[in-house]
Parts: sequence; C-alpha cells; structure tokens
Amino acid sequence: MAILSRAITLTESTKETHKQLAGEILQGVIHATGNSFRLGITGVPGVGKSTFIECLGKKIIKQGHKLAVLAIDPSSSKSLGSILGDKTRMEELSTHKNVYIRPSPSSGTLGGIAKATYETMLLCEAAGFDFIIIETVGVGQSEVMVSGITDFFLLLMLAGAGDELQGIKRGIMEMADSVIITKADGPNLQKAQLAKAQIENAVHLLQPQESGFITSVEVCSSLENKGITEVYLLIEKYRKFAIATNYFLFKRKKQQRELLYDFLEESLKKQFFSNPKVIQELKKIEEQSISKGFIPFNLANALIRKIIDP
Amino acid sequence: MAILSRAITLTESTKETHKQLAGEILQGVIHATGNSFRLGITGVPGVGKSTFIECLGKKIIKQGHKLAVLAIDPSSSKSLGSILGDKTRMEELSTHKNVYIRPSPSSGTLGGIAKATYETMLLCEAAGFDFIIIETVGVGQSEVMVSGITDFFLLLMLAGAGDELQGIKRGIMEMADSVIITKADGPNLQKAQLAKAQIENAVHLLQPQESGFITSVEVCSSLENKGITEVYLLIEKYRKFAIATNYFLFKRKKQQRELLYDFLEESLKKQFFSNPKVIQELKKIEEQSISKGFIPFNLANALIRKIIDP
Repeated sequence: MAILSRAITLTESTKETHKQLAGEILQGVIHATGNSFRLGITGVPGVGKSTFIECLGKKIIKQGHKLAVLAIDPSSSKSLGSILGDKTRMEELSTHKNVYIRPSPSSGTLGGIAKATYETMLLCEAAGFDFIIIETVGVGQSEVMVSGITDFFLLLMLAGAGDELQGIKRGIMEMADSVIITKADGPNLQKAQLAKAQIENAVHLLQPQESGFITSVEVCSSLENKGITEVYLLIEKYRKFAIATNYFLFKRKKQQRELLYDFLEESLKKQFFSNPKVIQELKKIEEQSISKGFIPFNLANALIRKIIDP
Repeated sequence: MAILSRAITLTESTKETHKQLAGEILQGVIHATGNSFRLGITGVPGVGKSTFIECLGKKIIKQGHKLAVLAIDPSSSKSLGSILGDKTRMEELSTHKNVYIRPSPSSGTLGGIAKATYETMLLCEAAGFDFIIIETVGVGQSEVMVSGITDFFLLLMLAGAGDELQGIKRGIMEMADSVIITKADGPNLQKAQLAKAQIENAVHLLQPQESGFITSVEVCSSLENKGITEVYLLIEKYRKFAIATNYFLFKRKKQQRELLYDFLEESLKKQFFSNPKVIQELKKIEEQSISKGFIPFNLANALIRKIIDP
C-alpha cells in the first residue's frame, strides 16, 4: 500500500514532471483497472456518513472484498486533522489489512478533483481493490461528479430534521439509485419510518432511472447495526441486475465519454490561458477592451484565430 | 429605424457572411456608441414588467430621451405572438417616434444571447438612442447577464404573493440597485407597504453595493401611474452619483473586460470543437475513450497539444 500511496501522491501533484510520471504509471497499469464495483455515497454533514461506511465496509470485507474508501470534500480544504478524524471514525476499517482509506485532494477546480479522484480510483483498482467507495458532501456540485464516476449512488438522509429534504436539492435526489435514512434507532425510529414513506412518495414523482432499477428508500441504524445487510444486498441486487441487462457496461462507457469531453473543455481553457503567446497578447487586448473603439467579441475572435488554425 | 432593424437582424444571424458584415458595421459605428444610460429590469412573469416599462418609458421620452427597449426571455423561444403581445402591452410606447422596441433572440447559448443583446444595444446607441432598457425574466441566469451589461439594475416584485421572495433567488436581490414593488394600488397598497418594510430589512442584511449607492425599495402602481416619477428620479440620482464618483466609467470598463473573458471562453470552445482536425480526431478518440487501455485525460491532452502550440 506504500507504493499505492506514492503513486496517488504523484497523481495529485501539481508539478509537471510528477504529472508525467503519474500518467506513465497509469498507462502502465490501465489494463488491470475497471474490475471493481464503484459506490458513490453522499449526504449533508451530520448525517452519519463515516459510521455508515464503517458498518457497510465491515460487511463488504466480510464478503471477501478488498475495499478502498476515497473521501472528497471540496467545500473545505481538508486539514490533516479531519483526515485523522475520518480514520478515527472508521476505526475498525482503517486498521483492517484489506482496507485502504484516502482523502481526495479538495483544492483546485472541480474538474481537477474529478481527474484526481478518477485516477486514484484506477490506481486502487490496479492495486487489487475490487470495491471502491467514494464519499462526498451533498451540498455542492461534487455529488454530480461522484455520480458521474460511480456505478451506484447512495443518498444518505436524516429523518425528522424539520424539513425532510434538508436542503438537498431535487437534482441530487434524481441522481440517487437509493435513498438511505440513517440513525433510525431509539426515539428516531418512528420518524425514520414516516420519512421513508414521504421520500418514497417524492421519489415516485421523479423520472424512473435510466437503468430501469427502481429507486428504493431504506432505513438503517449504524448504532444498532440494523438495515446495513439490507443495503449491501440491495447493492448486490443492482450489480447483478445491471450486468444482466448490460446497463453496467453501457453506463461505464457513457461516463468515460463524458469524462473525455469535460476534461477536453477544462484542459483547453487551461492550456489556452497559459499559452505564452496568449498571455502576451491578452495584456494588449485587455487594455483595448476597456477603451472606446473596440468590440470585445472581435478582439476575442482575433486572438483565438491566432492560436487555433481555422 | 428600418436600417437599425436590418443591422440587428444581421447581428443575430447564424450565417458566417452575415456575422462578418455585422462585425464590420459595428466596427464602423463603434465610436458613436456608449452614450446612453443602460437600465436592466427583471422580475417574474406576472409582476407587470410591460405596463411598468410603458409608464416609465413615457416618463423617459417626456424628458427628451430617445428610448430603445430590448426584451430577453431565454426560458421560452419567443413566438411572434408574444412579440406582438409586448408591443400591444406597451401600446403608447410602441407607436411613439422616439421609441424602438425589439425582442432579443432567445435561442442559443446564454453567451450567444449576451453577445447579440450587447451588439444590439451598441447599434441602438449608434442610431441615436440615449436610453436603453433591457428587460428579462427573473427566473434563470439571464438576469446575471443583463446586470453585466447595464448601468443600473431594477428588480420588480409583487407584494403579498404569500412568500415575499416569490422564488427570487438571494443572488438576484444582491444584484439589484433598487427593488420596486409593483401593483401597489387599491386593496394591494397596504400589502405593498408591508412588503417594502420586509424587503428593506432583507436588503440591509446584504453587502452594500460596490457603487456605494444605497439599494432602495420603492412601491409603485402602473395602473394609477403612482411612484413612477420617483423611480425615474431615483435612476437620475444614481446616474449623477455614479458619474460624480467615477464609478459609472469604472463599472463599464469592468463589464467590458468581463465580456471579453466570457466570450473568449465561449468562442474558444466553439472554434475548437468545430475545427476540422478536431472533428476528425475526436471520432477516433471517442472510440478509444470507451475501450479499455486508454485514460480519457491523456487522450484529451494529446488532442489539445495537436491544436494549440505549447
């Protein structure tokens, strides 16, 4: 795992030589990737993601899987403290020989985080991990990205937090392959059952999933270790269903095509604005754009024509 | 005005020859532009934008201005029916010799609409119109764009529609230089006064405007023609204030620089993806991206390097 960690660190580096080396390593192991099940998990802070992953993760390794957990939180630059926090909250998992826990870099553009997370996932697969969990916070755009690189997407929700939707945007609910109501124990259990019915109602109003799999709503308690097996079985059921219908491969290919186009746009902008000729010309053009007698669109087009052959 | 309409139509055309001709016309008249006051107006459907503009517009031309009204509605492709509808609702304005009313094209990307609207505005200025109103619907992203090309931005709101915020996002409120509560007449008057107090409270919690001008909340009735003069005087007060503090020119320059960068990004993407070499290579690369053994990021970078010199 020391080698894996070194390789991931190269992937995350901003140094050009490191990036090149990382690219070469990836190209060298690419044929050993793609053989895992990729699970995305999102939910607002406080919903109990870490303890849920601790419970589900133990179930997963008990089935003989090797598990990698990648955590993304683009809303805050993750400090060393919170990384340790993650590992502490996943106490049993983090010390298990078949588990690898790693926070993804949270700085930089979303496109950059997507690339680093995707490459980290590939490296984990090449290192033999056949179950990948990618965890993120359901408050920004990162869950769209995670949903775009995983096979199955779980949305964790708390019951009885006043508004059942807890600021979760409708769009996130639409991405979910399953909604899990956490902390359904003690006095919370009844609220959780009520929330389940309400969310089931809401989910039925949404468009059916492209996969044809019915979005289910489950309740669980990490504290009492209840409902976790059901979630694991649900994921297993989906995996078999999606492989049988060929949707599994169809979705992976679609995701790879989308990654290609997203990255083309991101990289095009980056390479254009860091091009020495562009940097030099932009100084002049910016001056012109704020003086009378120039039309910004004409200035822009002229510059682009100098860089890209028509 | 027939010439103006022809020139605007060229600007909106998707034909390359028309675009070039439009660019040449614009370059020819650019020194005669920039001499108007540019007023942005937004508000949800039903807030009474057309009747408000009819009343305010009459006030504006009474002061000796020549007025152009550009209407944008990117949320729906504007049919001929609704254009006629606009002109009917602005009955007196539309027949006045010093008034020009024109809907902006609503199809295409927001960047495309921004470009067409900006160029239309320049053409109107070159044709001697010294007061431009750009009207849009406060439900999407178009109000950000309109606020980005106007000197003063009015948000129209209805009182007593249950929720005083009527689905208006906080971000739109922050863009507004003034909030106008419409239809403050008859039984609505009291509700409007109450809403004014509530919105004033909300506005005071926001960051102060960059201009230093205090965001005011006004009530008005287009039906009884009340409060319209006050809105006109407010705009006049802002104009004098912003010119005296030099903010007027500072903001225009900032807007032009932002337009340049927005358009650079938009146009870069467009020219890249319509480049014959890219189109040809993309077919191959897309195939590769969905087969095993290729990393989408490496494929993307290799393609961009072929088009942009490092």
